[in-house]
Amino acid sequence: MPSREQSRPAAPGPPRSAAPFKVGLLGFGTVGSAFATLLEERAGEIERFNGRRPLLSGVLTRTRGNFDQILSEADLLVELIGGIEPAREYLLRAIRAGKDVVSANKQLLSQHGEELFETAREHGVRLRFEAAVAGVVPVVRVLEESLSATPIERIHGIVNGTTNFILTEMAQGSSYAEALADAQRRGYAEGDPSDDVSGRDAAAKMAILARLAFGSPVHLDDVRYEGIEHLHADDLQYARELGLGLKLIGTAERRDGGLSVRVHPAFLYAGHPLASVGGPFNAVTVESEAITEITMSGPGAGGRQTASAVLGDVVSVMTGGARPPAPPLALPLIEDVANAFYLHLDVVDRPGVLATVMQVLGEQGVSIKSVVQRGMGENARLVMVTHPILESSLRVAIERLGGFDFLRSTPRTIRVIEEEFT
Amino acid sequence: MPSREQSRPAAPGPPRSAAPFKVGLLGFGTVGSAFATLLEERAGEIERFNGRRPLLSGVLTRTRGNFDQILSEADLLVELIGGIEPAREYLLRAIRAGKDVVSANKQLLSQHGEELFETAREHGVRLRFEAAVAGVVPVVRVLEESLSATPIERIHGIVNGTTNFILTEMAQGSSYAEALADAQRRGYAEGDPSDDVSGRDAAAKMAILARLAFGSPVHLDDVRYEGIEHLHADDLQYARELGLGLKLIGTAERRDGGLSVRVHPAFLYAGHPLASVGGPFNAVTVESEAITEITMSGPGAGGRQTASAVLGDVVSVMTGGARPPAPPLALPLIEDVANAFYLHLDVVDRPGVLATVMQVLGEQGVSIKSVVQRGMGENARLVMVTHPILESSLRVAIERLGGFDFLRSTPRTIRVIEEEFT
Repeated sequence: MPSREQSRPAAPGPPRSAAPFKVGLLGFGTVGSAFATLLEERAGEIERFNGRRPLLSGVLTRTRGNFDQILSEADLLVELIGGIEPAREYLLRAIRAGKDVVSANKQLLSQHGEELFETAREHGVRLRFEAAVAGVVPVVRVLEESLSATPIERIHGIVNGTTNFILTEMAQGSSYAEALADAQRRGYAEGDPSDDVSGRDAAAKMAILARLAFGSPVHLDDVRYEGIEHLHADDLQYARELGLGLKLIGTAERRDGGLSVRVHPAFLYAGHPLASVGGPFNAVTVESEAITEITMSGPGAGGRQTASAVLGDVVSVMTGGARPPAPPLALPLIEDVANAFYLHLDVVDRPGVLATVMQVLGEQGVSIKSVVQRGMGENARLVMVTHPILESSLRVAIERLGGFDFLRSTPRTIRVIEEEFT
Repeated sequence: MPSREQSRPAAPGPPRSAAPFKVGLLGFGTVGSAFATLLEERAGEIERFNGRRPLLSGVLTRTRGNFDQILSEADLLVELIGGIEPAREYLLRAIRAGKDVVSANKQLLSQHGEELFETAREHGVRLRFEAAVAGVVPVVRVLEESLSATPIERIHGIVNGTTNFILTEMAQGSSYAEALADAQRRGYAEGDPSDDVSGRDAAAKMAILARLAFGSPVHLDDVRYEGIEHLHADDLQYARELGLGLKLIGTAERRDGGLSVRVHPAFLYAGHPLASVGGPFNAVTVESEAITEITMSGPGAGGRQTASAVLGDVVSVMTGGARPPAPPLALPLIEDVANAFYLHLDVVDRPGVLATVMQVLGEQGVSIKSVVQRGMGENARLVMVTHPILESSLRVAIERLGGFDFLRSTPRTIRVIEEEFT
């Protein structure tokens, strides 16, 4: 049999009726219950295409179900508990028992991903996690399968719908506090929004995407992130006047022989594929030499959308379309990358200030692309856009500027992403 | 063994070295030679992930290679000949010999798809065709796999990069002839552009997508299509003034218990996900209840991009992620659908004309959303946007208007796609 399998791997016959495919479900919150409903709705259609009918064989909640029994009965486990423990322990036990697993748990995957991947690889088990990243946008699948034909150069995108909704509202004139309250009212933001607005949620997703695209382990702690809490109405107004988008952008890319993974607000020039993505949407652009670029966008996940991504993973295991993880590569993480920057300086309006600022910047190699003096007297501000410069060099320049008495508040910086396809 | 396979289908062990996976290639033009190059470049990485190394085991061109020998040696055949014959004959022979096949041939799939799907189903053979539709945008994969969890309601998109480039240039003030010449100069349009500009190429792609999304056979001849040759500078100017996009849109959707598949130019309200797709790009939006919507965009295919999609298909067969086609469903095709229309009437400027026009339209149930009289005297034109109306009713109204002597040229109509997500 092995030799036949090698000459024609997993060759399926025409779909036919067979024993049901038993799915054990861990967790029965918003996503878990939506998943159970969707599974039942779609069981007939999935059977028509794949020859086997998926069946919910057991559910574990805090108050009911027995993990060992669910594990022993199921062909596959779906983990929708969230958080680190007991989700990690359950997944590891399932994997060690040789069961394929599906999870939507970005905290777990971004912090204990290597342990899970490594264990899955040892046991020849599939570990699927489409729903952990980018809402309904099938970026995991596309990265794994379509793009296995081409090395990825860069992924960047909007992977947090909450902050994108807030920034969209702010671009239309709302204050940060108003936009956040509106997001909470509509159910786009949690009561405690800090994971979203700090950029940490986006950082977890970028860690997972980076591991997937580049094969190199990336822990959440390796991702440099900056959120949106410090953005001012001024910055949004500047964006509006110049027709720029201001988005919270996650980036994972090859740089200088290594890998840079980061999340920060960025000005996008008009025409950038991500600039027009508004509201609670996610969008991810994948770039590689052979494909140029693919952008995928869709709503950030609600319960039913997430459930749909989870069910897609279950189907992909049923059809044999998923593989156990490959062994990791190791790319060095690059901390210090060059970017163009928007630089906002609140300065006393007196002769010689601009000259001093330019001299300090110039000494650190910061070269200015455009400069606008805004306001007069009490309200004078210098707003500039730099040419690409290493973040460390800009930081030194800003520290040096802090030593002068003409600065009236802490300088603000926001990265600028240049137009790439013209 | 069958019972074990049923309880755990196609369970792969960890990747390991094995016999090479032999790929026979039919056709060695632009795409074929790019495919051969890419296959060689990526063989090592594909082996690392999948445990087997893909190897080009034979190439058939008009002057070299023997089909039977290539067939007998290969695990899979890639057809990049194009056109109907001999591509159809070769693919059928390969399928009947039990070999999986990959094709980028949209003419063949949109005209003989059912014969190929049916034969592949009988023989339990995989038939992959990502590269036949929408350039590098992986819409086939996403439809088949991610969305098996949810019934599709509608697909619409820009699936012809040539016409999208021309319309983008025209929106910036070029004439149709200038834009076409520019497209030809850049290699985006053929010397004979009629397949693209008539909408026929887009219609073939929509036939394939409709078959895939709805499971119901759709032949190219079933698709109603209209191209861009008849668009006037006037229409583009109107779009520019109102901030609308004018795009060649392919649509496949459930309507009235059946299926409507069509291609036509359409005005898109600003904010529509397809409105901002410019240049030689493709973009496809997939809508379903459970996922809401996903939009995917990327450049229309050049040789290397198409080769990358083809190689993705090869990898998906290697990893067991593809299935033979499912048996077809049968949805009735709906020919007559309701749309909002832009209506351009070149009329003599005299009393009573507008009243007569409104009366004729009203008699056919055409209700007007907005009307603008443009120009004076010799240059008077009536430009209106209707509320949604059956195409047949609008056609009757326009025929009736043709009986009056105040019309100075044939009325022009362009569909209008209303904003859906606000």
